[in-house]
Amino acid sequence: MRSNNHVVIMAGGVGSRFWPMSNVDKPKQFLDLLSTGRTLIQMTVDRFMGICEPENIWVVTSADFKDLVREQLPLLPEENILLEPCRRNTAPCIAYVSWVIKSLNPNANIVVSPSDHVVADTATFKKAVGECLSFVSTSDAIVTLGMKPDHPETGYGYIEADLTCATVINKNIFRVDSFKEKPSLDLAKQYIEKPNFFWNSGLFVWNVNTIVNAFRVYRPEMSALFESIRDFYRTPREQESIDRIFPQCENISVDYAIMENADEIYVYPAEFGWSDLGSWSSLHKLLPKDQYNNAKVGSNIKTFETQNCIIHTSSEREVVVQGLDGYIVVEKDNTMLITKLSEEQRIKLFHD
Amino acid sequence: MRSNNHVVIMAGGVGSRFWPMSNVDKPKQFLDLLSTGRTLIQMTVDRFMGICEPENIWVVTSADFKDLVREQLPLLPEENILLEPCRRNTAPCIAYVSWVIKSLNPNANIVVSPSDHVVADTATFKKAVGECLSFVSTSDAIVTLGMKPDHPETGYGYIEADLTCATVINKNIFRVDSFKEKPSLDLAKQYIEKPNFFWNSGLFVWNVNTIVNAFRVYRPEMSALFESIRDFYRTPREQESIDRIFPQCENISVDYAIMENADEIYVYPAEFGWSDLGSWSSLHKLLPKDQYNNAKVGSNIKTFETQNCIIHTSSEREVVVQGLDGYIVVEKDNTMLITKLSEEQRIKLFHD
Repeated sequence: MRSNNHVVIMAGGVGSRFWPMSNVDKPKQFLDLLSTGRTLIQMTVDRFMGICEPENIWVVTSADFKDLVREQLPLLPEENILLEPCRRNTAPCIAYVSWVIKSLNPNANIVVSPSDHVVADTATFKKAVGECLSFVSTSDAIVTLGMKPDHPETGYGYIEADLTCATVINKNIFRVDSFKEKPSLDLAKQYIEKPNFFWNSGLFVWNVNTIVNAFRVYRPEMSALFESIRDFYRTPREQESIDRIFPQCENISVDYAIMENADEIYVYPAEFGWSDLGSWSSLHKLLPKDQYNNAKVGSNIKTFETQNCIIHTSSEREVVVQGLDGYIVVEKDNTMLITKLSEEQRIKLFHD
Repeated sequence: MRSNNHVVIMAGGVGSRFWPMSNVDKPKQFLDLLSTGRTLIQMTVDRFMGICEPENIWVVTSADFKDLVREQLPLLPEENILLEPCRRNTAPCIAYVSWVIKSLNPNANIVVSPSDHVVADTATFKKAVGECLSFVSTSDAIVTLGMKPDHPETGYGYIEADLTCATVINKNIFRVDSFKEKPSLDLAKQYIEKPNFFWNSGLFVWNVNTIVNAFRVYRPEMSALFESIRDFYRTPREQESIDRIFPQCENISVDYAIMENADEIYVYPAEFGWSDLGSWSSLHKLLPKDQYNNAKVGSNIKTFETQNCIIHTSSEREVVVQGLDGYIVVEKDNTMLITKLSEEQRIKLFHD
């Protein structure tokens, strides 16, 4: 059974919200943002240990990041790093790896995970993923992991479930009624009052035939492209074939391409301390804080009359901050950013 | 006449108010704080050009700073850099250089200047210094340059002059009634209402016999020490002799040792845009500002909703500041400081 489980880690993101910590040369997933000694992609792989062997772990990323992945994940076989020649969102990424895995094992069960999220409770995470993999091994279901919301977050999509009807095989898994886009604050407040609304974590579980068939039904053109090179997967001609067809793929997320169209969508509600770490504010929540609610990453940071700040610097740097309330202070290499936490959505604009 | 004029630049200060721009390895006088391409000591020497030749310019500094002085003032003869083996305030510094100059030229007229002040109007400065040198060449007067105050500064000492009685030789020079220590704000406000109160600029002019005699009268012990090694000035044994006697000197400023005791003290009131550049606030006043009253030194600084700030960084660094009002942001090498301008007196304490 073990050998049928595969983990797919999507690592092509080029986040700019954590500038100047992250940048186009080293996006968020390759950074040790929590200062644990492990980068986010390393922590992602770590939490799948026991779910499958390293040879069944796949990373799909930009060709630009191949060296970073090899350096940070030395246990991963080099041929398990799939390289996208250009950015086309998550649907072509998942299609590519699904056709590859199908060529090796038509009985594969797959969990797809972002590379830059955080999970606090790894044991609960593993239990949830394990149950979902087991579920899809005997069904054609598409399963998403839904997170029980604890605040009216407007930065996440929501899943509306039908809690009246658990599946026969696993009573923790429910039918999805609908997917909701990132809501307004008012709507988010309504959502979290209801017991059947969950955050969409971006974690998906399915067997390889289910997802390949879903592409064939809902994205026949994309499907035809990946089908056209089926003789070349896992051969010396795979990369050149991908480099040729990938740019022709529609630029679309798997949520839009598949999830919102398919009928048999299920959700596994879980609580394992999940965060997509999508902003400095969410990082501030996760980091240890001093008595004034300051999160400090760096070995030589002194604060005076300073509260509710996140201060993130190179470890060897001496930093003194006086008189700030609710600010981000970041310093990396040759860049420095000081901005109100409340204005963090504008960070992308600051350095264009 | 020209060859009797000497300029003495006191460059032993170890300012910590401009940390992290300045530090014990490179105090303020060796920094290009105004971003003009010239350090403060270079600008100081520049403004004496025409007053005397480089061979009559003297720098008294700590032995630690000899290389910095040579590097920054390459036109100065190496033997004109006098090295103090330890810090003893300005009186021993001035005594040392006075005994040296007297050994070379008993008819010398001397202007003594701090190395880290700023003068905006060099032409007026030169005219004032020239008149004072001319005045002391024919009198035993001790002359100070007094600055016409334009605000009730509490960081400066004040000079009370007797404006009813100009000297016969130069009608711009007046007797000093008294020196006033740094006043309270209330007192400073009273001072600047009166036409005969001036800031003490720390610029002194006298002939070499006047100052040597003043030391003999008012500081006989210190005088005896410098007299005891008179055979060794300008010989290979000068440094070892100084290294021996200097630590025995009283640690005292020339203001306390001489000025407040001597009878024949005069002041030349002047307005040449002088600042002792004693704080970030005073630097902020002197630097060019953008329309939001921000002074920015650095080639890649962007500000948003930011006003009344001084931002001083290494030129190659990219800096983004959002949402600050009235702050100092400084970055140098491996240190960074963010503090309210109103709290700048505490900077020394921040990095102890």
